[in-house]
Amino acid sequence: MNFDLSQEQQFFVDAAKQFSEQQLAPKAARWDQESTFPKDVLQAAGEMGFMSLYTPEAQGGLGLSRLDASIIFEQLAMGCTSTTAFMTIHNMVTWMIASSGTEPATAEFCPDLIAGAKLGSYCLTEANAGSDAASLTTTAVKQGDSYVLNGAKAFISGAGDTDVLVVMARTGDAGAAGISAFVVDAHSTGISYGRKEPKMGWHSQPTRSVTFENVQVPQSGLLGKEGEGFKLAMKGLDGGRINIASCSIGTAQQALNHATQYMNERQQFGRQLAQFQGLQFKLADMATDLVAARQLVRYAADKLDKQHPEATAYCAMAKRFATDVGFTVCDQALQIFGGYGYIQEYPLERHFRDVRVHQILEGTNEIMRLIIARRVLAEGVELL
Amino acid sequence: MNFDLSQEQQFFVDAAKQFSEQQLAPKAARWDQESTFPKDVLQAAGEMGFMSLYTPEAQGGLGLSRLDASIIFEQLAMGCTSTTAFMTIHNMVTWMIASSGTEPATAEFCPDLIAGAKLGSYCLTEANAGSDAASLTTTAVKQGDSYVLNGAKAFISGAGDTDVLVVMARTGDAGAAGISAFVVDAHSTGISYGRKEPKMGWHSQPTRSVTFENVQVPQSGLLGKEGEGFKLAMKGLDGGRINIASCSIGTAQQALNHATQYMNERQQFGRQLAQFQGLQFKLADMATDLVAARQLVRYAADKLDKQHPEATAYCAMAKRFATDVGFTVCDQALQIFGGYGYIQEYPLERHFRDVRVHQILEGTNEIMRLIIARRVLAEGVELL
Amino acid sequence: MNFDLSQEQQFFVDAAKQFSEQQLAPKAARWDQESTFPKDVLQAAGEMGFMSLYTPEAQGGLGLSRLDASIIFEQLAMGCTSTTAFMTIHNMVTWMIASSGTEPATAEFCPDLIAGAKLGSYCLTEANAGSDAASLTTTAVKQGDSYVLNGAKAFISGAGDTDVLVVMARTGDAGAAGISAFVVDAHSTGISYGRKEPKMGWHSQPTRSVTFENVQVPQSGLLGKEGEGFKLAMKGLDGGRINIASCSIGTAQQALNHATQYMNERQQFGRQLAQFQGLQFKLADMATDLVAARQLVRYAADKLDKQHPEATAYCAMAKRFATDVGFTVCDQALQIFGGYGYIQEYPLERHFRDVRVHQILEGTNEIMRLIIARRVLAEGVELL
Amino acid sequence: MNFDLSQEQQFFVDAAKQFSEQQLAPKAARWDQESTFPKDVLQAAGEMGFMSLYTPEAQGGLGLSRLDASIIFEQLAMGCTSTTAFMTIHNMVTWMIASSGTEPATAEFCPDLIAGAKLGSYCLTEANAGSDAASLTTTAVKQGDSYVLNGAKAFISGAGDTDVLVVMARTGDAGAAGISAFVVDAHSTGISYGRKEPKMGWHSQPTRSVTFENVQVPQSGLLGKEGEGFKLAMKGLDGGRINIASCSIGTAQQALNHATQYMNERQQFGRQLAQFQGLQFKLADMATDLVAARQLVRYAADKLDKQHPEATAYCAMAKRFATDVGFTVCDQALQIFGGYGYIQEYPLERHFRDVRVHQILEGTNEIMRLIIARRVLAEGVELL
Repeated sequence: MNFDLSQEQQFFVDAAKQFSEQQLAPKAARWDQESTFPKDVLQAAGEMGFMSLYTPEAQGGLGLSRLDASIIFEQLAMGCTSTTAFMTIHNMVTWMIASSGTEPATAEFCPDLIAGAKLGSYCLTEANAGSDAASLTTTAVKQGDSYVLNGAKAFISGAGDTDVLVVMARTGDAGAAGISAFVVDAHSTGISYGRKEPKMGWHSQPTRSVTFENVQVPQSGLLGKEGEGFKLAMKGLDGGRINIASCSIGTAQQALNHATQYMNERQQFGRQLAQFQGLQFKLADMATDLVAARQLVRYAADKLDKQHPEATAYCAMAKRFATDVGFTVCDQALQIFGGYGYIQEYPLERHFRDVRVHQILEGTNEIMRLIIARRVLAEGVELL
Repeated sequence: MNFDLSQEQQFFVDAAKQFSEQQLAPKAARWDQESTFPKDVLQAAGEMGFMSLYTPEAQGGLGLSRLDASIIFEQLAMGCTSTTAFMTIHNMVTWMIASSGTEPATAEFCPDLIAGAKLGSYCLTEANAGSDAASLTTTAVKQGDSYVLNGAKAFISGAGDTDVLVVMARTGDAGAAGISAFVVDAHSTGISYGRKEPKMGWHSQPTRSVTFENVQVPQSGLLGKEGEGFKLAMKGLDGGRINIASCSIGTAQQALNHATQYMNERQQFGRQLAQFQGLQFKLADMATDLVAARQLVRYAADKLDKQHPEATAYCAMAKRFATDVGFTVCDQALQIFGGYGYIQEYPLERHFRDVRVHQILEGTNEIMRLIIARRVLAEGVELL
Repeated sequence: MNFDLSQEQQFFVDAAKQFSEQQLAPKAARWDQESTFPKDVLQAAGEMGFMSLYTPEAQGGLGLSRLDASIIFEQLAMGCTSTTAFMTIHNMVTWMIASSGTEPATAEFCPDLIAGAKLGSYCLTEANAGSDAASLTTTAVKQGDSYVLNGAKAFISGAGDTDVLVVMARTGDAGAAGISAFVVDAHSTGISYGRKEPKMGWHSQPTRSVTFENVQVPQSGLLGKEGEGFKLAMKGLDGGRINIASCSIGTAQQALNHATQYMNERQQFGRQLAQFQGLQFKLADMATDLVAARQLVRYAADKLDKQHPEATAYCAMAKRFATDVGFTVCDQALQIFGGYGYIQEYPLERHFRDVRVHQILEGTNEIMRLIIARRVLAEGVELL
Repeated sequence: MNFDLSQEQQFFVDAAKQFSEQQLAPKAARWDQESTFPKDVLQAAGEMGFMSLYTPEAQGGLGLSRLDASIIFEQLAMGCTSTTAFMTIHNMVTWMIASSGTEPATAEFCPDLIAGAKLGSYCLTEANAGSDAASLTTTAVKQGDSYVLNGAKAFISGAGDTDVLVVMARTGDAGAAGISAFVVDAHSTGISYGRKEPKMGWHSQPTRSVTFENVQVPQSGLLGKEGEGFKLAMKGLDGGRINIASCSIGTAQQALNHATQYMNERQQFGRQLAQFQGLQFKLADMATDLVAARQLVRYAADKLDKQHPEATAYCAMAKRFATDVGFTVCDQALQIFGGYGYIQEYPLERHFRDVRVHQILEGTNEIMRLIIARRVLAEGVELL
């Protein structure tokens, strides 16, 4: 057992930290206020390899493990939660095409996605199938050499500003087994995008609905085989949960750093806040929960890397715990700042708004509980 | 002991509910998005008596109890948290002038404040004296028949858009006993206002800093006697805490209503959300905490009305508990809505942003704990 | 609305407080350690009227309201949780016979129960029907002028040491409508008692199983009509929940008093514990939660007294909230005592063990959540 | 980074598991009810090496790491919390003598302690110096070739039934620097023991006070140098916190296993408990918190093994988090068992009573918060 970063991992941390501090942190507040999708910075991230962290090296990615990626996303999220969260989605899209795509599709889409020159969106959720992904109704019907897509997706990150879509659609019967995955050019005829959804946070990535009306997708756009889409989506979700959990960890770390500094500087009643034991206790619990959450995320990422049979349960645990802790830490850091926590001149309220959605995304934390309980009840919980 | 609303109270509830549903609820989302300070609606509220609920009848107010006012603010907050919160501040300002002002000051300011034709701001907080109000440094120096004010206030609700200021300033030595209260024309020479502070919520009321540079205040502007300002401020705070707690209760009730309706309508996995026991448990705890919080607020309001010697401790309890519950209920209601909770098309994220500041305002909830603990340790807690 | 005790209520408080301090508190630790069922003190309680608080005056009881009884039980529980909890069960039994019994049964059993000369047990729970009371399998078959009881009850408070049993048994079909209630002489032929169940707390009242083997019960022993037993039991449970919640409140108040005194006396690191802000915050939350819980219990008791249509939901809220708060306060008071909290020389560990079962009894707190949620989802939660 | 057990660690787990299941689990309930100190089983543990896990091999111990020991204690605690907790104390005593004792002292005491033939107690706490160990007043005065001890210790595990004491006593001025550590024959003239302290749990190890009246300790009994006692004690405490945290983890795992099995077996309302989503959510959170706590304990143990400069802060985090989680899991498992959780026929109430003291021992969890906060505020919390 060994909990230390390897030399290589430390190198990634340093690189990500530098990128985060130079390219993300100084601009995050502005992106938030102006709802800017920073395509230029995403391209710069691509140049660093951050847009294809665990895409296989054979396809041009960095070929890192999920654990490596988690460590990197954590650093990036310290600079901008929302932008990093988009990068995790893009990473998933790129990995999915690279690992399950046909040769023509991989050749067509991967180089630009890896470079960050083109951006990808992941189209699973539908308005009436939130947590219940298997009930999706978008259809893909085989017609000659193509599939024809019809239906609509909701809450799609990046949609309308991205170039490549991975789309889950029904090619068969009702239920999970009838779903297939496709890679689709985002500018294809028949695709239209809804208005930019005003939302509480995650302002540096646009969210839109996507409507497919007789969209032609060449047969080479099929990822894996027909009917494998749901399985692929679920596999992607395990990693997606590690990713979003890592974004919560990084954001909470940043909020904790701010709160610590503020407590050391701010005077009230003739003393530093740092000297008030009631606040010390609060800070101690924030730090403890955060360290526990980080270790749990890494533990689960390692299980995923090793294809442990219970990896899904571990990833669900990590997602549930780390996103809850992430929010609580940001909430308490805001509280320590008092009135300054509530105004946009300080970053606390942005952290608070941005991490809140992590408890909802990639399967709500209630769905995580179901996944965990099912496994514990079926197999026992002799987890070592 | 009797926990039922009187006929008169039920009448107030009905009137406030009607106003809330007709004048506030339909516009709250727009005011939030456009940061509109709805002066017209505040004037309409004045016509209903909502701007001077507990201002003595002799001065033209409704002369209601704090308990009555709490019940009314709760209803109003169901329609718009932020606007109602401003109304509570205005009520405090009006009451303070009416009950402690000189005859000329009362005559000059109260009629318009009561009518809602003019609006009032409360200037206590300074940038370096957040929770530690007694350390404030704004000065008021007697010069002939006037006081001359110099200094700056921070986070002032309504400032820049209001007409009347109640200002706490130092007329004597350091510490609480050197502070006096003044009513000041907001348009006086020498008063300048900072930029409109961008903040996470409470968008329907502007927040600005206020700078006083040799501002002349006639002697008649002194509220009470010299040196009584801090005592007056603290007395105002007890009521202010009931008020803000009531706003949390009303908002949480609204969020709970939305969540209940959503659970009855939304289908997932072939069933209503209402049929999922995990969510039922969550809803039950939200409802229970809310009912407990409401009773605690009313209990404390009654203690304040009766000038119970421990009223300050009870008000601190009510503020701490109700604003924490209020936030938690809104947070959980947002969670029940899933992705829809995070977008501005639905009101949940607004409730969530608006109530968050209640845990900070009128003394942070950490200060509440200090007040409560001090009293329990000094007197025991034989509270019946 | 009025939250003050009436003169009459204050009189009851004083009397109960005196009894609690003189008859219960000095002996509670010994009863706990020696598992003594204090029949003599229960008889003394009967002389005070504490064994028939809400039994109608016409039948010889005090005829108080549930709210009055709650206030009294709270005081008594400060002296001994376990003994007071038994008294609440006895009160329920006495009230049930007095209000639903035939004339001969009332005449036979009530005078001695009211006097505390005889003691009563309530036999609802069965080993395989814990929270699911409607599935009970004990039968009562009409034979001539009698009913013949067969079956077994589990976890019966007082059983084996009491004289009168109220027994729920099946006279009809499966389900709630097939259940009837009987009053039975505890010494009847065919009744046998299991061993005294060793349990974590509640040592001053024995718990045993009860087995009925062809037990003859005269027709006059039927309470209400055939098939009304479950309804009667549920009605009793609403009050039982108020009672047990009141016992939690009283115990927590006592634990809080101890913790407050200890913080004022105990020195660590050269200061009183009372001066450590971290502990002050803890104490403040304990006090606040307790005051909120007490008000909620009284609110629900009042709804029950007024037969409010939603009284069951309010009683469930009060039970859930007050028993959770009661346990948490005792747990935290124990923590404040440090090592002294864990040893039997101090009362904290007894309070902790005794109140723990309140979260389980009279319907677990999980069942409370079901009751509350069902009502909120069906009717909305416009609770004022 | 690697989170898997090594082959050697898996071997230890298996051996400890077997010992736990065969030697501890079957007898734990009886030891609890009869307050038996199982010396024979402790000797058997010695034969397995469990009484000297991290005592250096040079002195005859197993020479394992703290991480290895944590993994082993976790398994043992699944069988009996209280007995394993005593074993951890004995391990600390043995390690302290072996690593800091003089040659004669090591030769005299270690072999029997390692074999489990003699048992050791750790005498730090005094009645008036609970968490504030540095203020202890027991004195050790040099007289010729000996030290003479006078004073009293409180809450000493095993005292009166053990053979060897490690005693912290004052050889110099007030404060931490005046404290020295000694190994003392427990049967020395002048040592007397108080009555066996009745306590809520931990019944399989006696707790007594120890009084020293002119007790002669040969100079060879000094551990380390004069004035190093407090430093030694603090170093011991870091490990002691890992140990007690590990006992909480093991106990909670056992409670969770019971709860899982019970949910799969118990029927209510015609369904298994396992099918109720409200309980599933509870179970999921228990499992998640437990897995997070285990990883945090191992992480901290590894820091201690590597003598990381912040090891003390990590150990405090692990102790605080794991003992809180341990208690909560046991509490919730008890709740899932309902009435059966409260009676001694089932192990849940014993787990609940036994782990409760872990939140108090080895520095209360409030002291842990101070340690953590101090470090975070001084150094920042850039913990990776």
